[in-house]
Formats: sequence, structure tokens, C-alpha cells
Amino acid sequence: MTRENAGFRYTSSFRRNLPAPAQTWSPPAKYNFAVGHNDRDEVPTEALAEAAAAVIRRHGADLAVYNQGQNPLGFEGLRDFVAAKLNRLRGASCTADDILVTSGSLQGIDLVNDLLLEPGDTVIFEAFTYSAMFSRAQRLGVHPVGAPLDDGGIEVEKLAAVLEELKRKSIRPKYIYTIPTIQNPTGSILGLERRQQLLEVARAYEVPIFEDECYADIIWRDGAPPALWALDPTQVIHIGSFSKSLAPALRVGYVAADRSVLARMLACKTDGGTAALDQMVIAEYFGTHFDSHLRELTDALEDKLRTLIEALDREFGTSVELTAPKGGLFVWLKLPDHIDVRKLVEPARAAGVTFNPGPTVACDPEAAKHCMRLCYGLPTKAEIREGIAALARVFFEETGIPERGGNRPRRLVDT
Amino acid sequence: MTRENAGFRYTSSFRRNLPAPAQTWSPPAKYNFAVGHNDRDEVPTEALAEAAAAVIRRHGADLAVYNQGQNPLGFEGLRDFVAAKLNRLRGASCTADDILVTSGSLQGIDLVNDLLLEPGDTVIFEAFTYSAMFSRAQRLGVHPVGAPLDDGGIEVEKLAAVLEELKRKSIRPKYIYTIPTIQNPTGSILGLERRQQLLEVARAYEVPIFEDECYADIIWRDGAPPALWALDPTQVIHIGSFSKSLAPALRVGYVAADRSVLARMLACKTDGGTAALDQMVIAEYFGTHFDSHLRELTDALEDKLRTLIEALDREFGTSVELTAPKGGLFVWLKLPDHIDVRKLVEPARAAGVTFNPGPTVACDPEAAKHCMRLCYGLPTKAEIREGIAALARVFFEETGIPERGGNRPRRLVDT
Repeated sequence: MTRENAGFRYTSSFRRNLPAPAQTWSPPAKYNFAVGHNDRDEVPTEALAEAAAAVIRRHGADLAVYNQGQNPLGFEGLRDFVAAKLNRLRGASCTADDILVTSGSLQGIDLVNDLLLEPGDTVIFEAFTYSAMFSRAQRLGVHPVGAPLDDGGIEVEKLAAVLEELKRKSIRPKYIYTIPTIQNPTGSILGLERRQQLLEVARAYEVPIFEDECYADIIWRDGAPPALWALDPTQVIHIGSFSKSLAPALRVGYVAADRSVLARMLACKTDGGTAALDQMVIAEYFGTHFDSHLRELTDALEDKLRTLIEALDREFGTSVELTAPKGGLFVWLKLPDHIDVRKLVEPARAAGVTFNPGPTVACDPEAAKHCMRLCYGLPTKAEIREGIAALARVFFEETGIPERGGNRPRRLVDT
Repeated sequence: MTRENAGFRYTSSFRRNLPAPAQTWSPPAKYNFAVGHNDRDEVPTEALAEAAAAVIRRHGADLAVYNQGQNPLGFEGLRDFVAAKLNRLRGASCTADDILVTSGSLQGIDLVNDLLLEPGDTVIFEAFTYSAMFSRAQRLGVHPVGAPLDDGGIEVEKLAAVLEELKRKSIRPKYIYTIPTIQNPTGSILGLERRQQLLEVARAYEVPIFEDECYADIIWRDGAPPALWALDPTQVIHIGSFSKSLAPALRVGYVAADRSVLARMLACKTDGGTAALDQMVIAEYFGTHFDSHLRELTDALEDKLRTLIEALDREFGTSVELTAPKGGLFVWLKLPDHIDVRKLVEPARAAGVTFNPGPTVACDPEAAKHCMRLCYGLPTKAEIREGIAALARVFFEETGIPERGGNRPRRLVDT
């Protein structure tokens, strides 16, 4: 409420190290390449409406009871679905009792962190990784150490060298956080041989693997090797999500792990359960539509990716280097070494374009200053073309690169 | 997954002070008086199914975007509804921008705690209060100090004495946590004069008030004085919930507070937003059905309360003392001083009955050992009658009290 002379009296009572206040919200940029949103046209609105009505008619009375009167691991229909999906597509052999439903995979991350981490601990991240991991590490007072990546994913020999170096200092990391299937942001899929090697190295150095497979349902073709968790369930804690396969405003993810791990996490999950309708509707809709929806969604996303790559080629030419991702919602770009994309964030925003600067997703921010991530799930194909043209224009005006666009040399104009 | 010789290898990597593992889940007792569930017959299943289908058809595409592309404070339609409800029923004059939607009021509690608390801090709880507050205080390493209650709610003069005593030790509590409107577990409503006095005392000792109004929508009649937050928004952080007014498996609550407080909380709320469908369906259904639903629900609950009081009178007679609550889902009972209800938990469970022992909701557990809370939202009227009869039987067998039941003297029987 806004009253004269108002304002909470006790800001001096706030705890130490509280994060800065959230900025006043403003609508997203016209050309939003900055967040892993999904494709608005691919939300199956009518089918979800029907699924919601059907499942509420069938199970609505259960909403009167916390956790719908069921196991607090989550809605049984959804845990059954997740277990079957992991068995069929990710090489697992699990049941619903190996699955804990979470409020988005972010809650899964928080639970893994709560299980394992204390201030001063060390964790291994891939050299470029999910940005939310860095803010969490900072808040928890733990030290991330980067493991090198190439186009095939985590470089296991180099990881072993990192672990050896830490061991020499008597440091045993609390986990190796990896996104093996559609790595974020580089878009790679770790091959089977590397998966086996990674597990061997992790066992040798006695470090658990924290496997994030939140993009694993969105792969263009040929599938992927089994999940690390499926290959060794005693070594790995696995998380997944429905944000990418269906919609991120639905806050539903899951942890798949040894039951002793789930029992510990459940004791830390003091939220009264994950939202019932989101769980019920996903279970109901995906119970019959998973394969057809994912086929349509991945086709649409791959089509947008082609549009994005064409636009980058047209507008940036040889000034950008990229490896086409094997699935997912984003592309990782490298610009010439001397570019610092951090300086381009504000000019781009002024031109209506947002993107993820490399340093925000890198263990070594300086080494990624010429890199950026572009998400293509939300913008339409027309917006992708216009947005990349606008972005190239900003880059040219600020850095002189790219010099050509649309087969014509660029020129600075008075604006 | 269960494999031979399986088991997560790294239980030695778990952090210190991790809570004990959650016990293997088993279905709730036949006569479940232990949790504030709601009435299964009062979930408006058909209307919710229609609301869900309608709102998904209207806003479904927005699910593709985190927070539905809206302010991360929460779904706009729901924040509008909450603000209007607080203005109309709780004396506030706020807008949607004064409301932060949370994943149940439990997340609101966690955010208030995250905003204010550090290990070693002191907080004021009402002498008997919400059990989840104690586990949180313990986990956070803060010290709860009890403020006396009577049938009219928190005793303000005695609270002032507690604050004075702490001040003498140079301790300024971080907040006074109060449930002024249907106090949990005692069922009282704090009168307007005491509300004013409480605010004065809190201001005098410079302690913010943390007001939990999660039962305020379920009042038998005559309403309640304005929320403390409405009386002084600079002094109070307010939370509420839809668990009691609609259904607890929907995980939706809210914080109402000064915008500077919300901006800080939002920076701590790193969950990617609260579940969209739960928010959307509540907004859609309550947008047109709030008053009619609450009238029907409170009538049904008051009817169950009458059944419970009759059953207690019949089965326990003068062995229990109770003050009928003015709303809500529970009754607070006092048994003769020498009874220790903790010893009756297991025998009652064996007879199919669960209840909340007084010590689990008391700042001074020993002083509440002869007290218990009975929730009457979930059991049917027949189950209330049968369950109270079974409970009285257990009490008689274990303690010799109550000596009479159903107008007949009880006798021990061989079983």
C-alpha cells in the first residue's frame, strides 16, 4: 500500500548479505533471445483445457488433502509417467518410488544443494553452464571450479586433471554438475563412451555426479545415449523438467535418485507439496500425447533454429562461429576475441534486443567475454529475422563488426 | 532404482545437521484429526473443471513464457483478486502491486524468514502456534520466545513484559509472529482494541509484526476486525493462503507488504515463479464464486464442528475443556493436568486415530502436555463420531479418563 510517509520501518532488521532488491518489472524486450522460454504456438491449449477438465472431474475431491492424500513424493500418475519415460527413453529401469516431483527443476537443484553443500565446499561445473548455478553457489558460499568442454561435451581427461589437482590440495568436490544431453549453453550431446569414462573418473575420485537433463526431451533426431543415472544409479543424482517439453510457467520438474537420497530430500522439502493442478494436468495430457507433442514441438523448434542460423549467416557472416545444437532452445555463439559482449548489452536493449552475455554463464567470465547465448523458443520466425538484423546493426555501430550484412557492406548512419 | 548392492555411494558427503530421512509413506489413519486438510465434499469439482478449461483456453499460450510473461510477483488476475479481497474483507487499501503470490503460505513464511533471520536471532511466537514455525526456527538456529494467549488472543500487556525483559538483555526480536484471526490452535479472534494495542507495543519496542491470516476467510459470522497490516502497513508483513478457503493441494498463498519488502523477497524467490495453473484456476473460479463458496464451506465446517463438540461432550464429558473456535478447521482441547498426551499418540494411532499433541505446537512443550489439537476438516461427520469414540476408548484404557462415555461408565475389557 502506498501511503504518505509510508515505507516498511524495519529495513535495518534485514539480514546481512541479502540480495539487492528486485528491479521494478518491465515487459520483456521485443526481440527476447535472453531466456529459455518456449514457443507460444506450440502450447496445446485446447488439449490442455480438456485434460484439465477431465482430471479435475476425476480427482478434484483429492485436492482437499495435502499431497492429494498421496505419497509426498508427488502425484502418483505423474511419477508413474516420469518413471516410464525414463525407462523408455533414457535407459533407466525405475519405478514411481525412484521419482520425487519438484516445483520446477530449480527446486531439484536447491534440494541437491541442500543435501550436500556447506559454505566453503567446492563443486565442479562445466566451463559454460546454467546461469542459475552461479547465483546459488555464491549465495551458499561454495566455490565452483570449471571443467573444460568441447563440441562433444565435458572433456573427461581434462576433468580428471582438475580433480587430481584438487586432490593434491585435499579437496574432494561435493559434486560434478553436468548437462550431458543438450549441454547448456553449447548444445552438445555427450557420447556413450565419454559417459562411461565420466562415471569411471567420478568413481575414482569419489565424487557424485549431479546430472541435469532438463533438455533431454527436445532432441532433433537419433536420440541420445542413456542417462548417466541409468548407467550407474549409485553414482548419480538426476533431475529433469517439463519446462522445455511442455511449458515453463508450469512449475514441475523431478529428481530421480537412490531412495535413500530421496528420503533425505523429502525431509528438506518443507513446502507442503508441489502444486497439484500443474502435476495433474501434465500427467493427464502427456499420458496420451507425449510422443506426438514432442515430435511437433521439436520440429517447430528445429525450424526456428534453421531460421536463426540463416539470419546469423546473413547478418553476421563470418563474424560469428557456431556449432548447431543437437536440440534444445538456444545457440552458443563466438564472436572475434577482442569483442566484449558485456558492453553491447545496453545498446542492444535500447534497440529492443536481449541476449545472454557469455560471462553470465561461464566459470571464467573473462574467457567468455566474446561469447553469447541466443534463445530461439519464444520469438517468431519473423522476430528472429528482425531481431538478428537489429542485433547485427548494434554490433556494427558499437564495434565495427560485422562489416557486411545481407550481402551488402554496412555503413554507420546518423541516427 | 533398486539393484543388487545398490545404494547411493556418497551418504558421507551429506552436509552436517541434515534432517533425518523422511519415513516411508503410509496412508493416513482412518480417523485423521492431525492435519488441517479440508472437506472433500466441499471441493467444487465441476466448477473448477469449467474454470480450468476456460482460463486455459483464454491464457494457455502464455504458459510458454516464465511467469506467463507477467510481473514475477505473480499472475495478474490473482493479484488483482487478492488485493480486492483484502480491501473488501480485511480493511486494506492496496493494489495488485502490494501482493506477492507464493507457493503456499509456507513459502511466504520462508521468504519472511529469509528476509530477516540469522542464526542466533530471537523471534516472538504466540505461546501455542503453527507447528511448522518451530521446525523452521530450529533449522535456522533462531530462538523462539513465547507470548501468552488467552481466549481473546495474544495478551498484549504480557507481551510487553516479555519485550521489556528481552530489551533489558539488549535483545530486539526480529518479529512477532501472530495469527490474530482464528488463532492456530486456539481459534480466537483478536479484537480491534487489542490489535491497536499490539501495534503500539510493537512500535514502542521497534519489532515488526509478522501476521499470518491463513484462516481469516473461514469465520462463522460477524467477521473480524481489520488485518493488522491494514491498520499499519509500515509495521506489518502479512501472509494468507488458499489452502483453507479452497484446497491445500493447490499450493497458492500470498504475501502483502510494503513494496520495498516485496522487492527484497522477490530477489530471494529464485523458484522461476509459482505454478501457473494453480494460480490461474483459483483466480478464475474465485473471480465469480468466492462469496458463495465460502458461505457453503463455512456452513459445512461449522456443522462438522458441532458434530465434533457433541461427540467430545458425549465421549469425554467433563474430562475435556474447550472453547469453541470462531472459525477454521480445528479445536484446542485441555485434558486434566496430569495427562501426558504424548504417551497416547501411539496407542491412538494403533486404534486408527491421529491428533496433534499439544507439545508439538507449544513454545513450552511441558506446559502443553495435557493439550491437543483436533482438526475436523477432512473426516466426515460419521468418522468424527466414530473417531472420537475410539479416541476416548484409548484415553480411558491408557489413563482411566474419561470414566464415562455415552452416558455409561466405561469398563476395561480384554482385547
